[in-house]
Amino acid sequence: MTTDRLSAVLEHIDNDLPAAIERLKDLLRIKSISTDPAFAGDCDSAADWLVKDLQSIGFETSKRDTPGHPMVVGHAGDSGRHLLFYGHYDVQPVDPLNLWDNDPFDPQVEDTPKGKVIRGRGTADDKGQLMTFVEACRAWKAVHGTLPTRLTMFFEGEEESGSPSLIPFLKENSEELDADIALICDTGLFDDETPAITTMLRGLLGEEIVIKGPDMDLHSGMYGGPAINPIRVLARVIAALHDDTGRVTVPGFYDGVPELSDELRAQWEALGFDAEGFLADVGLSEPAGEAGRSVLEMIWARPTCEVNGITGGYTGDGFKTVLPSEARAKISFRLVGSQDPHKIRESFREMVRALLPGDCTVEFHGHGSSPASVMATSDPAFEIARQALSLEWPRPAAFVGGGGSIPIAGYFKSILGLDSMLIGFGRDDDLIHSPNEKYSMDSFHRGMRSWARILDALSAD
Amino acid sequence: MTTDRLSAVLEHIDNDLPAAIERLKDLLRIKSISTDPAFAGDCDSAADWLVKDLQSIGFETSKRDTPGHPMVVGHAGDSGRHLLFYGHYDVQPVDPLNLWDNDPFDPQVEDTPKGKVIRGRGTADDKGQLMTFVEACRAWKAVHGTLPTRLTMFFEGEEESGSPSLIPFLKENSEELDADIALICDTGLFDDETPAITTMLRGLLGEEIVIKGPDMDLHSGMYGGPAINPIRVLARVIAALHDDTGRVTVPGFYDGVPELSDELRAQWEALGFDAEGFLADVGLSEPAGEAGRSVLEMIWARPTCEVNGITGGYTGDGFKTVLPSEARAKISFRLVGSQDPHKIRESFREMVRALLPGDCTVEFHGHGSSPASVMATSDPAFEIARQALSLEWPRPAAFVGGGGSIPIAGYFKSILGLDSMLIGFGRDDDLIHSPNEKYSMDSFHRGMRSWARILDALSAD
Repeated sequence: MTTDRLSAVLEHIDNDLPAAIERLKDLLRIKSISTDPAFAGDCDSAADWLVKDLQSIGFETSKRDTPGHPMVVGHAGDSGRHLLFYGHYDVQPVDPLNLWDNDPFDPQVEDTPKGKVIRGRGTADDKGQLMTFVEACRAWKAVHGTLPTRLTMFFEGEEESGSPSLIPFLKENSEELDADIALICDTGLFDDETPAITTMLRGLLGEEIVIKGPDMDLHSGMYGGPAINPIRVLARVIAALHDDTGRVTVPGFYDGVPELSDELRAQWEALGFDAEGFLADVGLSEPAGEAGRSVLEMIWARPTCEVNGITGGYTGDGFKTVLPSEARAKISFRLVGSQDPHKIRESFREMVRALLPGDCTVEFHGHGSSPASVMATSDPAFEIARQALSLEWPRPAAFVGGGGSIPIAGYFKSILGLDSMLIGFGRDDDLIHSPNEKYSMDSFHRGMRSWARILDALSAD
Repeated sequence: MTTDRLSAVLEHIDNDLPAAIERLKDLLRIKSISTDPAFAGDCDSAADWLVKDLQSIGFETSKRDTPGHPMVVGHAGDSGRHLLFYGHYDVQPVDPLNLWDNDPFDPQVEDTPKGKVIRGRGTADDKGQLMTFVEACRAWKAVHGTLPTRLTMFFEGEEESGSPSLIPFLKENSEELDADIALICDTGLFDDETPAITTMLRGLLGEEIVIKGPDMDLHSGMYGGPAINPIRVLARVIAALHDDTGRVTVPGFYDGVPELSDELRAQWEALGFDAEGFLADVGLSEPAGEAGRSVLEMIWARPTCEVNGITGGYTGDGFKTVLPSEARAKISFRLVGSQDPHKIRESFREMVRALLPGDCTVEFHGHGSSPASVMATSDPAFEIARQALSLEWPRPAAFVGGGGSIPIAGYFKSILGLDSMLIGFGRDDDLIHSPNEKYSMDSFHRGMRSWARILDALSAD
């Protein structure tokens, strides 16, 4: 259902596309690489550019200093559902520069077999994506002289360098940033024809364990037999972490892991995900996770325990008959639902300790821990947005999961108490963080139109 | 029982000790580091020194060229039991030089709390040890004008650099080197008061395995769950290599593993080995090997399977949520009795293959393989030598095992068909291969006397 007020905005977007591309190019030319201090001035320029642009479409906008790169916050409207839109203006470094076909900061629109793309650093991650929303607002303002609902824009410049200023900034400005729901545009389409709203993101818990046996490395001729070998002990620990059906054996691990609703299961089945092709792309032929779960479910909705690294003893060329003094592994857990990372960390450590023979000790080094993000899709905004998106794209939109973490969604929830709708138009072949990054013109154009539809639907409700 | 002919030789050894020390110092001053080409001339000089010295005591001796450093072969006597004596004149490098208290090639006799020692590179490994035999022959010759039995001296100069010329030389000269039994003086006392004849040496089999899963490293957010993780598979393989009693589970592994004879078991028990102290020295408190076996038995008479190194995924600082494409381990087996390394290698590989899930492959890289050396102690020479040794030292000599390999013993057996008596007087604190290497004067003196007794007993039989 396309209202008249929306039709006019969509038409404006279509007609204004060439100018929107020029504005995006302007922003892309700013070398806002956040991780390299040499580009601090460029980050500042990108923030200034956004302040000015938002002001030009009626947002009361300011650049806000932090100990790192500045934030940009803009407000417009004072009634209706309050939406907080998040994006980031900083980009990844560009090296190795010699692998780029063109200057990464001189963006150009190109024809490709899969349609037009704009190529350059930051096109997909995240300047192109964030501008889809800004342009939707611009078009609405141009056509109707005002914005359809209450809006807060929130852009950071440190997403690619660990967001050191983010948590303090959210805490200090929680009242100003409070809203009804957040929109985050740092995600992708399900496939070229199918848009997606990511409603669940797995959490992550990291543990490094160091198992120690003898005080020093020993010679296996001298001590092989009576001396405990920490690599063998570590292997037993790792082997004990899963049962034969692929389930994680850490006690209490599955507390808080929900089963999929019938509705979500039906939506995911309807996506027609090519699990075979997904695995074949990386040389695999069969899903290795929990028995009886689909590949999509394994990635989006099931927790895991993985070993990300292991080392011990002699690992160089040739052979050394050493019995090492210690062995180490980096182990991580992907979490879903309401799994409690702290409880799991403790339970894991207890389990490991219980598996150690008398002469071994273990050291634990905790790495990051974040719970899963599970959005309250019972909020009608989710279904409204899903239907609006479905009207713009060839195939209906789905609520999907995300296998990895998007920390900002967790912070919005824990600090601001906000659920997020993660809606983005990136594609698997966008080469984000790599040379020759690009953003599809179809994503840019339909992305703007998608946001116009969502603004229309969420403000009409 | 000390015969008159022996008493005179022992007395000569005692009186001639100062001169014997000077001769040893002469040999020690030659920098015969075999592994460094800069010292090739010194290796040659050491060989020349030995040729001249052996000639001076009646051995028909020659230096024999090889593609590497020369061999020295000398013959004396033409009747009686034919003994082949082996030693090596090359030494380890001396770096780090700054950790030596004195010039490693300017040997000095020092007083220590445990008695006099001679300190310098090669004192214990192996120049001091080989000279104990040469000096025993010199004394016999001086007293009796002849040697008591048929003797062949065989010295190499590449023991510390992998003995590349040894096998071809043994093969080409097998007739000349053929004897009744070999004597090898590259081993140690059981303890300061107890001499030992090593009659069994464990063999060694090395395998490197590389388990491969996905074609490339994957992100655990994207693929964690459905993608197989080679580290987990490798851990399962390693964990499966032993059962809960510490026995190796490779099919057929224990074929050819003999139980100890009651006699040997009694001898070993009589040694009063301090298993607790042996483990405590390296920070351990309980034997980790096969249940129900003593520590000495574990080291000398039981086979093992050990992991000497393992690596996979991200092993640097911090954390990376990678699912690695491959994981590798270096695994070795210590072998005893008549275990067949080739059969075990094949059985191990078959077992590993059977443990792999569908999407994993494995590469094997075979490293060294040598069977155990088990001497035919039924040859009366062994018991004769044991009794002779027992007369010289405070405590009776024992037939012992050796946890590591001494390749020369294997080659004598496989190429010349010779059993070896491994008799040496080294001590645990000799610092061989390390700075401040030393040899006990007690070992040097009693070592010469021990050989005189053994020569007497073996030639009187």
